[in-house]
Amino acid sequence: MAENTAILETTIETLVENKKYATLRDILVTMQPADIASLFADVDEDKLPLLFRLLPKELAADTFVEMDSDQQELLIRGFSDVELKEVVDELYVDDAADIVEEMPANVVKRILRQADPEMRKMINEILKYPDDSAGSIMTTEYVTLRPHMTAEEAIKRIRRTGVDKETIYTCYITDDNRHLLGYTTLKSILMADEDMEMSELMGTDIISVTTTDDQEIVANAFSRYDLQALPVVDKENRLVGIVTVDDAIDVMEEEATEDIEKMAAITPTDKPYLKMSVWEIWKSRIPWLLLLMISATFTGLIISRFETALAASVVLTAFIPMLMDTGGNSGSQASVTIIRALSLGDLDFSDIARVIWKESRVSLLCGVTLAAATFVKIQLVDVMLLHNDISMLVAAVVCITLALTVFFAKLVGCSLPMLAQRLGFDPAVMASPFITTIVDALSLLIYFRVATALLGL
Amino acid sequence: MAENTAILETTIETLVENKKYATLRDILVTMQPADIASLFADVDEDKLPLLFRLLPKELAADTFVEMDSDQQELLIRGFSDVELKEVVDELYVDDAADIVEEMPANVVKRILRQADPEMRKMINEILKYPDDSAGSIMTTEYVTLRPHMTAEEAIKRIRRTGVDKETIYTCYITDDNRHLLGYTTLKSILMADEDMEMSELMGTDIISVTTTDDQEIVANAFSRYDLQALPVVDKENRLVGIVTVDDAIDVMEEEATEDIEKMAAITPTDKPYLKMSVWEIWKSRIPWLLLLMISATFTGLIISRFETALAASVVLTAFIPMLMDTGGNSGSQASVTIIRALSLGDLDFSDIARVIWKESRVSLLCGVTLAAATFVKIQLVDVMLLHNDISMLVAAVVCITLALTVFFAKLVGCSLPMLAQRLGFDPAVMASPFITTIVDALSLLIYFRVATALLGL
Repeated sequence: MAENTAILETTIETLVENKKYATLRDILVTMQPADIASLFADVDEDKLPLLFRLLPKELAADTFVEMDSDQQELLIRGFSDVELKEVVDELYVDDAADIVEEMPANVVKRILRQADPEMRKMINEILKYPDDSAGSIMTTEYVTLRPHMTAEEAIKRIRRTGVDKETIYTCYITDDNRHLLGYTTLKSILMADEDMEMSELMGTDIISVTTTDDQEIVANAFSRYDLQALPVVDKENRLVGIVTVDDAIDVMEEEATEDIEKMAAITPTDKPYLKMSVWEIWKSRIPWLLLLMISATFTGLIISRFETALAASVVLTAFIPMLMDTGGNSGSQASVTIIRALSLGDLDFSDIARVIWKESRVSLLCGVTLAAATFVKIQLVDVMLLHNDISMLVAAVVCITLALTVFFAKLVGCSLPMLAQRLGFDPAVMASPFITTIVDALSLLIYFRVATALLGL
Repeated sequence: MAENTAILETTIETLVENKKYATLRDILVTMQPADIASLFADVDEDKLPLLFRLLPKELAADTFVEMDSDQQELLIRGFSDVELKEVVDELYVDDAADIVEEMPANVVKRILRQADPEMRKMINEILKYPDDSAGSIMTTEYVTLRPHMTAEEAIKRIRRTGVDKETIYTCYITDDNRHLLGYTTLKSILMADEDMEMSELMGTDIISVTTTDDQEIVANAFSRYDLQALPVVDKENRLVGIVTVDDAIDVMEEEATEDIEKMAAITPTDKPYLKMSVWEIWKSRIPWLLLLMISATFTGLIISRFETALAASVVLTAFIPMLMDTGGNSGSQASVTIIRALSLGDLDFSDIARVIWKESRVSLLCGVTLAAATFVKIQLVDVMLLHNDISMLVAAVVCITLALTVFFAKLVGCSLPMLAQRLGFDPAVMASPFITTIVDALSLLIYFRVATALLGL
């Protein structure tokens, strides 16, 4: 696919240079909006408006939605008012709101001026909800039906009003005050007798969210209940919007990416990697590196305290990286497993006892396995093969430390994310780097304590 | 939510004990299949069949699909042939295939015996595709239309045959030999003039996958093109199935979880955490811990080689954890960012030069910032506050090492995942633990090299 894109880019460039606009248009209309947007992302700024104007109206709007906000802004600044209106008229209101959110104030004003009054009202409605809330990702274009409508009337209404709706496949039944009474699907309506009323046809086991619910709740509802659309209600249970499955998928990917970034000690951003400037990447990474570096110096302090012991038995130093790394890896395994389960809603704080009991046994098994492997390795490789002077006692110190470190690392790894969530923090922050820093200090403390006891340093 | 579940569990237990089956049924029918399955997961094995039999036929089948395979097996073993047939008849064929895949041979035989011949054929069709391929997650229940059909005829056909289809909202137009010609939506059909033919109404810019394509390709197509359903074709472009959006969402979550697990050095499994036995968790974690532990001993070898130098200047030892951790964290940041971008299809191997150029500048900035911070910290805290004997030269060694380590860590972190993908390996394996192990060795080599040069050890 990547190679094809490269070939296509060259073709398009040549066609632009030779001013073969008819051919260009013929090629573009066969393509998907997302692919056109990818192609445009690599086009020279001055050629972009020209290429964009080749697209037929609807494809132009669909492509516009898929482009990144820098390019959108560039195009809008070049648009005449008529051109801008043409694009805005074709947009779904939730996409329009997403675009408006990213634009500077003067561009926002121009967009809102071109939108018809109904759309302007809806955009403003969506914009008032907090970032990452259900309200901010919903659309206000959905089909509502009344309880007394028959299937025949419902189909007529959908035919008449459905053109601009983001989905017509799930319909919502409301009373005169917009209270949500139930839902039904176009499939049920189409399969039903013509004179069956919505009140008989509708399901009342409604899954809904409120406008201020976090988008992660929205995404989890879609995956748990296999939804096509999810109604968003206000505090009085009045229907104010719906979230469609394509937007829920975007949220899912965004949330998974955010979790992964947090786990790797990166401040999440919603820009794709190649679009971020070097400074932006630096800003997203450096605070955590600094914080973790400072924490790691405490580990250094522990080593300093045992400087004399280390100087007396330098062979102990050689095992420090292995002990710290294995402890860190063991802790990360536990923390990442728990963080993911928390994110997907498979676990919550009430499970903490079961989790700790399970991890204790797993960590005991892992600790013993690793200690045994290390003991064999020291005897076979270090002592017999390399003729290093490692006494049985030193080997014992290393293996006991390893088993204890793995045990505590896993307990810390599984319990910190759950505690974080309980206290209202994001558990994803309690992942590898954080756990590693704690476990490093822990492993050294255990190491020197065991060494002091067994070797009498 | 979790607390409500606990209350509900107690209520249900009490009702079962008091044999209030009518009340129980009234409660269960108001619930969603996924929630009933969660509830059943905590119910005693001997009470499960009794509770399951309370569910009306359709809800029973929907709940059955959501249950885990151990409980499904338990129920099937207790079912009479008639009961089993009732459940199987209500299943969609892709769900039935998923269930059959997890069952032991004798249970599979019983299920296939109860399925009607048409369904048995379809299940067998799906079962022949490799795990995690598009063929293995598709359904064979979809709506096909012919090019000459009018909108009116199409709606009649959908009304007549749509009941058992997994979706009727995207319809596929095929020729007499099942070759895929185009697609259309129920919305377009419903909005069109009654006598408009499918050949005029259909889109021909088809996005499709072949049966053997990996499910990750399927998931990425859904998110890139905002699809509701994706057609699956064989090598001759004959339509053999479709993947619906709810299954694509499951794949997305599964793939994200797999990536996260691999990044934390865990062998992925598709069982939820609480359902895995201690042995299974141990098996998924221990191979990586062992492998990484053995690699980490090489780091120990480097320390051993410089034992005399360390004994002469023990103060150097205290900075080892900080240098290793910061290097590891820097490398993980880069590798995790790149791995995620590769998974989402935002990056591929052709971008490697851009990525390396970007990461070089980011790592230079990060390295210099961290080195400067460390220099200030050594002077203010270690020297002035703690009166440690750290010479300017030692501080210089630490800071130069830090800057170099961060620089190389990020380059290794960003390039290894891309190389891995190029060579056909899974880039997710090239994440934190693996990078950390490499970077540990790297940072020590740099450290001792710089120390030898500057301190003349």
